[in-house]
Order: sequence, then C-alpha cells, then structure tokens
Amino acid sequence: MHNAKPLPSYLVQRYQGWKATTYAENKTWYRRLAEEGQRPRAMVISCCDSRVHVTSIFGADQGEFFIHRNIANLVPPYEPDGDHHGTSAAVEYAVTALKVAHIVVMGHSGCGGVEGCHDMCSGKAPELEEKSSFVGRWMDILRPGYEKVKDIADESERKRALEKQAVLTSLENLMSFPFVASAVETGDLSVHGVWNDIGDGSLEHYLPTEDGFKVV
Amino acid sequence: MHNAKPLPSYLVQRYQGWKATTYAENKTWYRRLAEEGQRPRAMVISCCDSRVHVTSIFGADQGEFFIHRNIANLVPPYEPDGDHHGTSAAVEYAVTALKVAHIVVMGHSGCGGVEGCHDMCSGKAPELEEKSSFVGRWMDILRPGYEKVKDIADESERKRALEKQAVLTSLENLMSFPFVASAVETGDLSVHGVWNDIGDGSLEHYLPTEDGFKVV
Amino acid sequence: MHNAKPLPSYLVQRYQGWKATTYAENKTWYRRLAEEGQRPRAMVISCCDSRVHVTSIFGADQGEFFIHRNIANLVPPYEPDGDHHGTSAAVEYAVTALKVAHIVVMGHSGCGGVEGCHDMCSGKAPELEEKSSFVGRWMDILRPGYEKVKDIADESERKRALEKQAVLTSLENLMSFPFVASAVETGDLSVHGVWNDIGDGSLEHYLPTEDGFKVV
Amino acid sequence: MHNAKPLPSYLVQRYQGWKATTYAENKTWYRRLAEEGQRPRAMVISCCDSRVHVTSIFGADQGEFFIHRNIANLVPPYEPDGDHHGTSAAVEYAVTALKVAHIVVMGHSGCGGVEGCHDMCSGKAPELEEKSSFVGRWMDILRPGYEKVKDIADESERKRALEKQAVLTSLENLMSFPFVASAVETGDLSVHGVWNDIGDGSLEHYLPTEDGFKVV
Repeated sequence: MHNAKPLPSYLVQRYQGWKATTYAENKTWYRRLAEEGQRPRAMVISCCDSRVHVTSIFGADQGEFFIHRNIANLVPPYEPDGDHHGTSAAVEYAVTALKVAHIVVMGHSGCGGVEGCHDMCSGKAPELEEKSSFVGRWMDILRPGYEKVKDIADESERKRALEKQAVLTSLENLMSFPFVASAVETGDLSVHGVWNDIGDGSLEHYLPTEDGFKVV
Repeated sequence: MHNAKPLPSYLVQRYQGWKATTYAENKTWYRRLAEEGQRPRAMVISCCDSRVHVTSIFGADQGEFFIHRNIANLVPPYEPDGDHHGTSAAVEYAVTALKVAHIVVMGHSGCGGVEGCHDMCSGKAPELEEKSSFVGRWMDILRPGYEKVKDIADESERKRALEKQAVLTSLENLMSFPFVASAVETGDLSVHGVWNDIGDGSLEHYLPTEDGFKVV
Repeated sequence: MHNAKPLPSYLVQRYQGWKATTYAENKTWYRRLAEEGQRPRAMVISCCDSRVHVTSIFGADQGEFFIHRNIANLVPPYEPDGDHHGTSAAVEYAVTALKVAHIVVMGHSGCGGVEGCHDMCSGKAPELEEKSSFVGRWMDILRPGYEKVKDIADESERKRALEKQAVLTSLENLMSFPFVASAVETGDLSVHGVWNDIGDGSLEHYLPTEDGFKVV
Repeated sequence: MHNAKPLPSYLVQRYQGWKATTYAENKTWYRRLAEEGQRPRAMVISCCDSRVHVTSIFGADQGEFFIHRNIANLVPPYEPDGDHHGTSAAVEYAVTALKVAHIVVMGHSGCGGVEGCHDMCSGKAPELEEKSSFVGRWMDILRPGYEKVKDIADESERKRALEKQAVLTSLENLMSFPFVASAVETGDLSVHGVWNDIGDGSLEHYLPTEDGFKVV
C-alpha cells in the first residue's frame, strides 16, 4: 500500500490527549475488556453522519454497545445470496454470536442520505438512478417508505417523515431475518426505533400502541 | 411495526444525562451544525466492536468525523452491480458529496470478525463457509489477507497480523474505487491505516516507507 | 488523601441524568425527607452482588428502606465485645433508633460468597482458611449451614441449598440480638427471608409452616 | 426458624410490579448476567440510609456496581485478626476477586450515624460510649475525624464537615489494606470520595489538588 500516509498530526495530538486522560482514567477497565472480551447489552444502528452523537447520548463508549453505522441507518431485507452484506453480517453477529438484548435503530434530522432518496424518488436527482450510484442503490431500500409519505404537502415535513420511515423500514426488514424474528418471539431480543433532532437535542421513540414517534 | 418496544429506561436516563450536560454545553454549536449541515474533515472506518473507542480517541463527537462502522472495518472491492452496498455507499458519499480530506481505516486487537475469518480459512469454522452465513460471506473480503499471514507459526501473532491485513486490504480496496483513486491522485484525499490495542491503549499507524505498522 | 481521584466522567454523566430526571421529578419529596429525616418501614439485608436488584424489586429508592448490603447477606451472631461490628450496628440502628417494622433478609442465586464458603468447607479453597482472609473469616458465619446441606449429591443443588441456608442462618442470628428478639416478641417487628433467582427473576420466601422456600 | 413470617403483601405487590415491567424489559440481560457472572466496573460504599439514592444516581441496577452499604459508609482499618469483618471482606472480594477498577465512597447529608458520632464525641450521648453499643463501637472508626472538625463553631457546619471526614477516613483506611494500596500503586484501581446533599440533589467530589470537596 504505497499510497497510504502516516496519521495526520492533528489526529495524533487528539489521540495523545485521549491516552493521557480517558485511557489513563479507565485503563483497568479497558484491560479487563481486552482480556475477557466484549459483552455488549445492545446493538445500535445509526447513521454515519458526523453530527449523530450515538456514543455520547448513551454513554456508549464503555464496552456496552455494539455499533453499526451506515448511510441513513438502513437495514436491507434478508438476502442470503452469498454476496457481501455488511449490515446483515453485523446484525447476524450481534444477535447470534453476542446475543444482545436490544437492537436500537436511530434516525436523525437533516439526514443527507434520506434527502438523496427523497430527491431521487421525486425525480430531482436522476444521477442517483444510475446503476453505478452506490448511494442510489443503497437508498433503494427506502423506496417503499417514500411511497408512504409522498403525499405530505410540506417538503420539510415530508423529509422528516421519510427519516422516520427509514427507522421503521429498518425495523421491518430486521424482522425478515429468521434469527431476529425467532429471538424476538422468544423474548430474548427486543427492537426499538428512535429519532434524534440534532439541533434541539430531543429524542423521540416509536410507540407501536400509538403507531407514531413520541418525545422520550 | 407492532413488535417494536419503547426505549429501555436505562437508556432514557443516560440520554437525559447527555441532554443536561453535553448537549446543554454545546447547543449553539449543535444548532449551527443542524442549520448549516455537516462538514466533516475525515471519514473513519472502524469496527462495530463495543470496545473500539473511535469517537473518544479522536474527540470525534463534534461534527467532524463521518463514521462508518462494520464488522472488522472492511471495505469490499469496487462492484457497481446495482445491488445494495452499504460500505461502498458510505465511501462514495464521503468522497464525492462531503469531499472529506482523509479516510482513516482503524483496526483493533481481539477482533471477533477477524478471528472468525482466521478460523474459517484454517478449516476450524465450517459453519462460516455456508452460503447463508452473512458473517462468513462478509469475511470473504479478507481471504487474500489470510494467505499472506497463514505461515506465521504463533497463533496469536498470526491473528494480530490478520487484523492488520484487514486494514491493508481495506486500503487497497479503497483504491479500486475510481473516485477514491482520482481524489488521492490529485491530492484532495489521503488514506491512512491505524490499529488500536484495546488493552494497553496504544495506536499504531501504517507507514508505507517501512511497509509496516509503527506506534504513533 | 493525596491518592483520591475526581469522579470518573462516565459516572458524572449518569449522575447528571438522574439529577435532570428522577431528582427533578421528586425534589419536593427529597427535600421533605432531608428536612424531616428518614422514616423507613423496613430494613433489607442483601448481598453486594451487582446483579441483585433490591431497590428495583421493591421500588426501594424513595426513602422507605434502610438497606444493608454485605457479602452473602449474612448477619453474625450477637457479640457485644467492643469491636467494630458493621452489620450488628446496622441492625441495632434499624431496630432501636428507626424502629423498622420489618427486616427482610434477601439471598440470591449464583452467590460468589456462598460459593467460596462451599469450596472452603469442602476443602477446595485452602486459601480461604487462612487467618488473614477476610472473606474466609466472614463466611465462617455460614459453616453451620454447610453442615446441613453437605450430603446433597448434586453440586449445583447443594450450592443453591447453601444460599438459602445463608438466609436462614441470618434470620437465626438476628434472634440472638436481645433487642430484635424482644421486638419480635411484642409484635413490633417481623423478620422475613427471601431468595431471588437472578436469571428468571423469580422470588421465593421462607414459610415456617412448610419449613421451606416457596415462590411468591 | 419458626419466627419468620411470609413476605408482607405490600412487598409482594411491588415485586410483581417489577417482574411485569423492569424484569420483563431486561430479562435477556438478566439471564446473561446469571449465566456469565457479574463483571462490575466499580465498587460503591455508601450508607444504609433510606434516602441515599446510590443505584438511582449511577443507574447502578444493571450489573455494573458492587455495592456495600453500612452505617455512615465507613471502612475500618486493616485488622486481619481472624474475626468477622464484613466491610473488609467486601473490599477484599471486590479488589482481589472481582478486580474492580474504581472504589467510590459516598457520604451524604443528614447522616444519623455521623450525628451519633458527633454527639458521642461531644459528650451528649453517653449511651453510645457503652461497650455493648454496636453503633457506638462502629462509629469509633470516625473518632479521629471528629478531632479535625471539633473547633468549627457552627453545629450544623461541624456535622457536615464530619460527614465529609467519614468519606476521607474511609479513603485513608482503604489504603491500609495491602491489596488496595498495591492495586492503587500499579494503577489498576483508583479511589474516589463523593458526598451527596439529599435535599438539593447536589453531588460533590473530593479533589486532592484542592484538599476539599467541590460540586461535580
């Protein structure tokens, strides 16, 4: 790999700051985690977006949460076709090997991936329709969600509704995995959907009894 | 989604702690990020493992890092076949839409996904060879890396070498994406490989001049 | 105390979560408790084990339960020899100063202290026999209980029986305290023994009429 | 044990409430904790007082905290004399068997045990001087602390200072245990002192650099 570069110095500086403080404060715990392995209580599926504060929100930087982050926190449907499926592999490992008790799917406001899906489905982003667009093909997962919200008149409301559909679509697709469905049925696993407003810091969770999201 | 449950109460408490402290201290900044969108300086690709401290290590919880986390921090080769490719979509979005300046691939010690690959390739985990194993098919990406380390006699040394191969394989596969290769060529993007020892907190980065990993 | 450190930051976050929620919701009550003093209805004696959910099980975080937690929920016999006796002091304060109406001794499954006693008494843990072993000398309290269960053939059944003997031994030792015996005699105090299965969440209480533990 | 009574029905009701909610919500996690054993990250030493919210404050009802509660959160000095020492046994088990990373000693406002010590040392509670007083003999541990605060003119200020001395005395006595001192020296263990105001919910931690308690 002749193209790789040394770590940029601003990251080296931050790393050294972490080593001298957080690591120093917690080293016994980190050593134990290294020796005894992880035992996460929950899996969190969230977006790659740099403004999503998943570890911070749940104090998650302590060996408790198995975290998968992808564009728009999407879970594709169950497709055991022998191809590479990174998200499905993460879900499989969390449920069958780590036996997590909860899966939390976490959406957020201002999601660029969801916005791309919105524009693609409403004809405003033809480049995302191209076969070679990885973002477009990934956001295809959310097309059925777009159908449910397309009649909302206000655009910003529509996009927000689509962000929540991304969470619901993932929850539904999760249930298409046989090992997820059976763990949910036996009560060994529960699934949860939340949506975070980045600007005002609020958090909403999906309540099936009300078929909607309510502030926590 | 009648199967979803409300957010577990222990997570609600932690969220409220974040809201009352970190959010309260940074709300002006979070509001600006919400209004103006993210502008991350780097993309980090790391493992889902609950013991990997990516945000903490790089002080990354502030809108600066676009973070993709999957099993064993792998990037698959470029395959624009129209299927769902979550990792490729994340890389495409980071490089072409967000125009990040750096991509850091971060491996770590004690990686369960890498260990699975090791066991599969050495014949000790036939269940991972099944077509329906998402973890097995995902770890296929690392098979060429196994070939390079399989003659190392000591098992724990061999696994550690394979963890580093996971980083190098991802760096190589990244270069197979035309938009990555061209951004690297023009100097708009640099790629970096690091490996974190969870127990002792050390960080090594790949130095092409020495064709090996050195402590930062 | 030059060796003490500031509170770890992950505990600070959790505390702030409590302050913003539970405290905020109950502050009038907490202020009254602070001004008027505690008036607990019962004393609970349980194990230090992190998996014992005493406050949670009895909704006990509201000023109602005076809680003593030690290794294996043991009460030593009455020994007014002028030495430091932490458990005896807690019982004395609960009964004579606070005049609690109930004392509940709560044992649990998988108790490490009881297992230590089992191993010590069966010759498998000679290090616990040393005079300097605080755990060994503390578990001496349960030696008479071991004599009653040692002939149970199945090891896991034997340990479970010993966990229940820990509850019964404590109930018996409680009656050796003159102020406990007299309060029980006048009907001002009742004592209760329960045992909690951590994994399945069941609770059994001791019924003297059946001389055994029955599920609640 | 012919004197024991069945569990009072108000406690049965609360237990059933917990079983139907908190247990049901967390049963997978509780089962895993039962099967795999506890792995607490910290030991907390706090008072038996019913108004001390230790589990609540730190979200501690989740298998993470090994909790010892006695009168006035005191740790006696190291005395390996072969007698029963419940607190010393708890500390020994936490440090040598569980290898906790932190010990947090937590004092609180309005502590009845500390008040008893105050009254005993200032001649106002001769009954606590009797050899047979378990509370008096337990509070002897805090006599050196009284000497340090006895000249504070205001009584309520003096008692509050004595509550903080109880935390500092425990921290000092902890260091007299060889296994604690050596774990602190190697950096495997850190000790922390905090004091909670029950009425206003504030929390102070001891900062050795300032030789005093500061609000968190």
